[in-house]
Amino acid sequence: MTARAEGNPKADGEMRLVIVSNRGPVTFSRDDSGGREHSRGAGGLVTALNAVMRREEEAVWIASAQSEEDARVAAESREAPYEVEGLKVVLVEHDEEAYELMYNHLANPLLWFVHHGLYDLPYAPELGDETRRAWEEGYVPVNENFAEAVARTLEASDGGAGDETVILVHDYQLYMTPLYLRERLGEDAFISVFIHIPWPEPEGWRILPVYAREGILRSLLQADIVAFHTRGYARSFIRTVREVLGVEVDEEEGVVRTEGGREVWVRAYPISIDPREFEDLARSEEVENEEERIEDLPGKLLLRVDRIDLSKNIVRGFHSYDRMLQQHPEMREQVTFLARLQPSREDIPEYAAYAEAIQETVDQVNKKYGTGSWEPIVLSMEDNFPFSVAAYKNYDVLLVNAVRDGMNLIAKEAVVVNEKDGVLILSENAGAHEELGEHALTVNPYDIDEQAGALYEALTMSDDERARRVEALQSTIRSNTIEEWVEAQLKDIAAHGKRRG
Amino acid sequence: MTARAEGNPKADGEMRLVIVSNRGPVTFSRDDSGGREHSRGAGGLVTALNAVMRREEEAVWIASAQSEEDARVAAESREAPYEVEGLKVVLVEHDEEAYELMYNHLANPLLWFVHHGLYDLPYAPELGDETRRAWEEGYVPVNENFAEAVARTLEASDGGAGDETVILVHDYQLYMTPLYLRERLGEDAFISVFIHIPWPEPEGWRILPVYAREGILRSLLQADIVAFHTRGYARSFIRTVREVLGVEVDEEEGVVRTEGGREVWVRAYPISIDPREFEDLARSEEVENEEERIEDLPGKLLLRVDRIDLSKNIVRGFHSYDRMLQQHPEMREQVTFLARLQPSREDIPEYAAYAEAIQETVDQVNKKYGTGSWEPIVLSMEDNFPFSVAAYKNYDVLLVNAVRDGMNLIAKEAVVVNEKDGVLILSENAGAHEELGEHALTVNPYDIDEQAGALYEALTMSDDERARRVEALQSTIRSNTIEEWVEAQLKDIAAHGKRRG
Repeated sequence: MTARAEGNPKADGEMRLVIVSNRGPVTFSRDDSGGREHSRGAGGLVTALNAVMRREEEAVWIASAQSEEDARVAAESREAPYEVEGLKVVLVEHDEEAYELMYNHLANPLLWFVHHGLYDLPYAPELGDETRRAWEEGYVPVNENFAEAVARTLEASDGGAGDETVILVHDYQLYMTPLYLRERLGEDAFISVFIHIPWPEPEGWRILPVYAREGILRSLLQADIVAFHTRGYARSFIRTVREVLGVEVDEEEGVVRTEGGREVWVRAYPISIDPREFEDLARSEEVENEEERIEDLPGKLLLRVDRIDLSKNIVRGFHSYDRMLQQHPEMREQVTFLARLQPSREDIPEYAAYAEAIQETVDQVNKKYGTGSWEPIVLSMEDNFPFSVAAYKNYDVLLVNAVRDGMNLIAKEAVVVNEKDGVLILSENAGAHEELGEHALTVNPYDIDEQAGALYEALTMSDDERARRVEALQSTIRSNTIEEWVEAQLKDIAAHGKRRG
Repeated sequence: MTARAEGNPKADGEMRLVIVSNRGPVTFSRDDSGGREHSRGAGGLVTALNAVMRREEEAVWIASAQSEEDARVAAESREAPYEVEGLKVVLVEHDEEAYELMYNHLANPLLWFVHHGLYDLPYAPELGDETRRAWEEGYVPVNENFAEAVARTLEASDGGAGDETVILVHDYQLYMTPLYLRERLGEDAFISVFIHIPWPEPEGWRILPVYAREGILRSLLQADIVAFHTRGYARSFIRTVREVLGVEVDEEEGVVRTEGGREVWVRAYPISIDPREFEDLARSEEVENEEERIEDLPGKLLLRVDRIDLSKNIVRGFHSYDRMLQQHPEMREQVTFLARLQPSREDIPEYAAYAEAIQETVDQVNKKYGTGSWEPIVLSMEDNFPFSVAAYKNYDVLLVNAVRDGMNLIAKEAVVVNEKDGVLILSENAGAHEELGEHALTVNPYDIDEQAGALYEALTMSDDERARRVEALQSTIRSNTIEEWVEAQLKDIAAHGKRRG
């Protein structure tokens, strides 16, 4: 941890850190007796940001109020952060309709689809009035509201932002926040933006209406650092900025020079996990109890664990399995495909259609090959994380074949606790591929035959080869944990010319 | 034409020029009495290559046999080119199944879709056995057959290829031809490849299965020049080569250095038209006769002329018109939208579905706004080029809103003969936009509202503004005709270091 001594902005004794993200670390509710209780947020982003909070104890985390009780906490935290489990939290209440427009009409359909390349472009999107309204009356005011909350929080603590203030803005719901932060806090504040989803190539970005494509880029260039999970996304961002705004860039150095003469660093910090957290979990009684259910599944275990998202490539995964069973009849009854799928965004029509396509495909494959004692695909949608971890421990093959995926933390979580020398099949379009691709079986997510071949190769791979690969994967993951992810960012914040001057 | 004196390879008195393209300048058939007759090919590519043939009279044009009579000509032209209308032609007969696999299973669905970004990626393509078979048993042998025909033709004429031989290979059906040409002709032959469709960004290219994505790029890098219609496509090609093959490139200079140390120049030569050809046509009696039918249409004339292709964005065009009529009721009955659409690739299911969607949309709009005396959209699919030219002369607004389009020659043909100071609405994703965008109304093809706004602006634009724009457009088109397109290529062929040495 030499980085800490050399590059930690806190060494100045001055830094005040503010995290801003749409989802926060806790949600509040009322228990039966009317008292306030809270539950911790889940998911990779919250875990990662918790690591930042552990590292910087004085940090404040600003997030959207999600529940009625959150709204009460939001009102209370206008004066000073609300403390819970050692975390300083400020919740922001948004106008309900504005939030709905931001979340369900702009961020999740339009921005998510553009970033992951999910549109059927001859027909969709059809951008129009509704898009403009979601932008003007939803996305923009919610982002302004966030910036306002940051400014108010800093103001309340000791008189606003100074050159010691560092604001970490997270992900695609908050692209306009840097613009409104800069307006309120001035040039001295250090703003870093982290984008957790893939950055598209310039032509993909230009699907957006002109006001959004240019507005977002101009806002992001108000940050001092714009960060991604891979060098590939960082490169695509730089090209997008150059081609859409015509701004001066240095692609090799990863620097954008704005018209105002500021330097924006564009960087890759591949997000990771806390391996100990998963190792502890893997040893827990609740996980061990679930392992019996896994052991009951016949044959080798082929596993996938995903949200039901169009980007995850679940249907093609089943088609590949189908093809493998077709090409290699001897593999039938020798393997069970456990698909742990979490329902998601079910009120977006494309997601409902995708969930149906998944169910139909599972039914087809099971009908085609199933026997009295063997169900080729076991579809499991129960909300049971210990069961997932039990599966992580016991898979022989893990399939991560995403069309596109910012990082895919499953590939790290599962590999790190796997006890069967399981083989990782990894899409070349998952962010994790930059780190893990060398020791995985790489697949083109669109190529069913290549995936069928990889499934067969993984299921028949020699023990030596499996052991060698898993060792290399685990060592790679353990050498870049969530701690290193945090350190690398803090080091660059300290090193950025702006803080030297 | 100073270029001719300075840079014409023919000045050496040595150059032998061979054009290779899938479609040729003529197709042969038998008349009733059993005699051979021929008809001239149509389309922008054939017109353009005819300009090359006019420029280089000794050139030979090699193309696929398309008819039974073509096959007879193919057999005859194995010894020496067949001469017709002053053109030297060699036809190549392919194995029927191989040609079908190349054309209808590899080039038109897969390559065309990848180049134009037409896939609904969460579901399609599903690459597999069928793709590999279309590649191995169709695309590759057809391309080898072309290369063989070139070698045979050169051999028959005077003993093979020398450093004076220049081979111009055209378009996406022939991507593997440079590889087999180089094998047969050696390093001395000068090979230029011209790609007439948009080049995708690297991630779009990587949709292809690994053997095709790498195989094609390696073959193209056997050429000495790889040419496109726009600087944007040339840039995307260079990036694709770097990211997929890891080859050394100079993006600024437009040069790829291959492992063997050769320099491949990557260049943009925007294709054009022969303005005189269209001016003559516009004055012809057959066109003048058709103008009456145009004059019968009520109100101003909004025109589009397209093949029915998923890339042309025909449905969104009608939706934009719908929105404009909704927002501006005063425009109803003041404009007629004449859509000249040419059926295309009807046996590809996606195309059949698209043709249906077009018909449904037209019916909806006409039902919604139509009156006894006004049909808002007139859908015209008759095969009648004079009628199209009559419409070119008389449009008030021309809509070219393609999702992606290599160049779009309609935007040049129609503008150059228009007599109404018509306004051009042009997609920023059409190749023509690099040259003509400045004087057109630019639209994002996905943004219905922006297109509706552009339609209204165009229909209500002042006479002065219309005149100013059309003059600038016509002057731009006349300053880069098909003659300049040919000259620029021949000049670069002469200038390429390889020929200096």
